[in-house]
Amino acid sequence: MTDSQPSAGETPSDSTVPKVVVSRLSLYLRELQRLQAAGQETISSSQLGTLLGFSDAQVRKDLGFVGQFGYPGVGYRCDELVLAMRDILGTNQPWPVAMVGVGNLGLALLGYRGFGRQNFSIVAAFDADPAKVGQTIQGLTIQPLDELATTVQEKHVRLGMIVVPGPQAQEVSDQLVAAGVEGIVNFAPVTLTLPPHVQVVGVDLAIELEQLSFAVTNKLVKTLPQE
Amino acid sequence: MTDSQPSAGETPSDSTVPKVVVSRLSLYLRELQRLQAAGQETISSSQLGTLLGFSDAQVRKDLGFVGQFGYPGVGYRCDELVLAMRDILGTNQPWPVAMVGVGNLGLALLGYRGFGRQNFSIVAAFDADPAKVGQTIQGLTIQPLDELATTVQEKHVRLGMIVVPGPQAQEVSDQLVAAGVEGIVNFAPVTLTLPPHVQVVGVDLAIELEQLSFAVTNKLVKTLPQE
Repeated sequence: MTDSQPSAGETPSDSTVPKVVVSRLSLYLRELQRLQAAGQETISSSQLGTLLGFSDAQVRKDLGFVGQFGYPGVGYRCDELVLAMRDILGTNQPWPVAMVGVGNLGLALLGYRGFGRQNFSIVAAFDADPAKVGQTIQGLTIQPLDELATTVQEKHVRLGMIVVPGPQAQEVSDQLVAAGVEGIVNFAPVTLTLPPHVQVVGVDLAIELEQLSFAVTNKLVKTLPQE
Repeated sequence: MTDSQPSAGETPSDSTVPKVVVSRLSLYLRELQRLQAAGQETISSSQLGTLLGFSDAQVRKDLGFVGQFGYPGVGYRCDELVLAMRDILGTNQPWPVAMVGVGNLGLALLGYRGFGRQNFSIVAAFDADPAKVGQTIQGLTIQPLDELATTVQEKHVRLGMIVVPGPQAQEVSDQLVAAGVEGIVNFAPVTLTLPPHVQVVGVDLAIELEQLSFAVTNKLVKTLPQE
């Protein structure tokens, strides 16, 4: 984890972007996409901050990471900001993803349409269970794990999605790394040991419920809009 | 959505907590739980900010929402902060949850252990499919939807988890609301219309992948630790 943030106006160095800024960029992006859909063309940092509950200064600092600066008297242009965010997040290009583990969660994720909207596409699915191999789900034929390396290369897969039980997760991630995958999203409830050049994001579904229990506990009135 | 934040030191009013502060509380909580597990007893706002990529001032402002203030020369006590966070998030008490829709994702969520760790417990599961009703999964017998209202009351269910296909989500949420549920976590890819007293959180799994594509695109070195 990195410790420093660039000061306002400083050109950001990639190695200094804190992880929380990344998740804020996703939030900014979805807010901006909603505004675009509603026909809004420009926005000020304080408006954007108000919508998301950040300070004006925080928004300007975060947008500094993106390398975007507003126009005096106009603010930021939504379309420019969306393009710049997607550029930074990497989602202006398609991301071929390989999934390993086609259990219940794997089946659900294969059918999840939100991935495609942000340019992620599951192009290969693997399972260790011979009974599953050869089945076709959502247009993908489930492959055995020994085809992983070849398929990752043939289909230019860059990201792996681990949806196996905890005890199998490390071995599967080792295979994905050996095959050349650059990043792993880990749905298994274990911490993976990975070489430093491979990125990893763990998914914690309890966070969504925690937001809800907070809202109910505090009887908020619609402060938590859906995505 | 609310627009204002309390200034530092001001006692927070529930209706002024912006939604993004809520998600930051979950991040603070997990970081503090990790620190506790590692034996750390106290932490300063700047240390916590550094770990999460927030400014010192942002941390102090956020902890102001929690009503926690540090000790001069000591900082914050991790155990006090964890208790206070869980108090605010509502997770110092158990949350009985009713799930509707036992498809692939529903089955996966029924087996997800991360919920229990944060005090969420799925105590009832419903499905419209007669072929599924009566099956026992993870110790729960799947019930027909016409038992929803009675069961929600009998089991003191406060939260509903919607895991049905998009076209069924509104009807199911109406039933949950009529049964007295106070909050809904919505995995269906639609926006629900709900009365203002019912809280809702939508789950967007693409955000995790977006964090990963960012990290890979920017060749970060381990800035994205797993949960």
